[in-house]
Amino acid sequence: MGACTHPGFGACTEPGIGACTDSPTTRLTIAYDGAAFAGWARQPGLRTVAQTLEAAIERILREPLALAVAGRTDRGVHAWGQVASYRHEALDPRALNALLPADVAVLASEPAPAGFDARRSATSRCYCYRVLAGALRSPFEEGRALWVPWLRDRDALHACAALLPGIHTFTAFTPTETDHVRFERRVIAARWEERGDVLEFWIEADAFMRQMNRVLVGTMLEVARGRRSIEDFAALLGGAPRRDAGPTVAPHGLYLARVSYG
Amino acid sequence: MGACTHPGFGACTEPGIGACTDSPTTRLTIAYDGAAFAGWARQPGLRTVAQTLEAAIERILREPLALAVAGRTDRGVHAWGQVASYRHEALDPRALNALLPADVAVLASEPAPAGFDARRSATSRCYCYRVLAGALRSPFEEGRALWVPWLRDRDALHACAALLPGIHTFTAFTPTETDHVRFERRVIAARWEERGDVLEFWIEADAFMRQMNRVLVGTMLEVARGRRSIEDFAALLGGAPRRDAGPTVAPHGLYLARVSYG
Repeated sequence: MGACTHPGFGACTEPGIGACTDSPTTRLTIAYDGAAFAGWARQPGLRTVAQTLEAAIERILREPLALAVAGRTDRGVHAWGQVASYRHEALDPRALNALLPADVAVLASEPAPAGFDARRSATSRCYCYRVLAGALRSPFEEGRALWVPWLRDRDALHACAALLPGIHTFTAFTPTETDHVRFERRVIAARWEERGDVLEFWIEADAFMRQMNRVLVGTMLEVARGRRSIEDFAALLGGAPRRDAGPTVAPHGLYLARVSYG
Repeated sequence: MGACTHPGFGACTEPGIGACTDSPTTRLTIAYDGAAFAGWARQPGLRTVAQTLEAAIERILREPLALAVAGRTDRGVHAWGQVASYRHEALDPRALNALLPADVAVLASEPAPAGFDARRSATSRCYCYRVLAGALRSPFEEGRALWVPWLRDRDALHACAALLPGIHTFTAFTPTETDHVRFERRVIAARWEERGDVLEFWIEADAFMRQMNRVLVGTMLEVARGRRSIEDFAALLGGAPRRDAGPTVAPHGLYLARVSYG
């Protein structure tokens, strides 16, 4: 759009993400297979989802652009319904997809209300972690689910998930070296769903800390293996140090499923 | 097993696939992502499923082995439930999978009745062809379904499938240069199933000719696009030449789903 030409906003000359809050805003819904991406956030010299999408949009708009995003997914994490936004008219998703590589696609490109920001406007995020719990691996779940052949106690998983809704202090579930300043998060819903040998952990919260879902799953799997009690898991939710929780499981089982806007 | 040591079969000295019909026989159920395989059948210098599996089994048995197989899938075709057999005791599928690459896995390894042969004993094969019929592609269906954004008439697909059960002459649905000598096949069941934007063509028959499913799907898609009538499709089932049918669609939508033994 270059300089904003809306009446009364003559001073707004920033491209793409200027101060002009009633310039056209677009909301993108995006899916990606995270395997070959170094995560969402732009990093010099690395293939990231943000850089890949911004490059495709810029090829059509012919001006620089910065995307706001609901969830800054880590390296290797997938998305079924990531949401991003930018200040410009919506483009046809078919045109964008034609410029994007096969592992990322725009699912929707829609006009958004003035002032919409994919990150700041989001009221909750929902993630899914997929576990293949059979004795034998599957070629079709390779890179799409964590294979856990030793899982014994599925009931323990359900018991752990039932403890999660509510406000907790998640210091035990994010790296000690952190940019986070607030460690309370409100979990709106959490449950394990069983689909044969595939177990899916669904969790919706107002926001998530870095690696929070992967440490939650890693710790619940220790309970399901009989190496940790449900009471121990419950105690971690009160603000324990990172070393008290379980391992950070692999990113290839994790999917940003959807984002809600109030 | 080396030479057969069963009483009364002293002359049976062939390794693996000898004439000794009551030596132990094993039935394998196998899944593979066909993308990186040049099909099932062993070919010099190429990575094939047969060669990959035989190599893994031979590493444990320490003797040469030849697998019989229910469906000789072409380059790029997947399998959810391929069946193979060999003359030797069953091995633990976990041990085999530990020696196999990530895109192929043994799902079951079971003792089979004397004389069992995965190809000759099979009474029917069931294949599934997956089509993504939405306007937008999906990163998670890449290589797993054929993306057909222009599909208009789903009812036409159902009407075509309804014509398939019974005995037909499938000359129109296999390459003109062929090793087949008999072109009649008995279709036991055929239907399209709709799962949102994913359409699945399921077909069970006594046996299939080379590329038969992919030409059937390519021709039905022409009907669904309005470029061919249902009557024209019906007429092809009476023994028309290959040039009268539609294109051979890509192998990455096709799955050998299961094999039945009478």
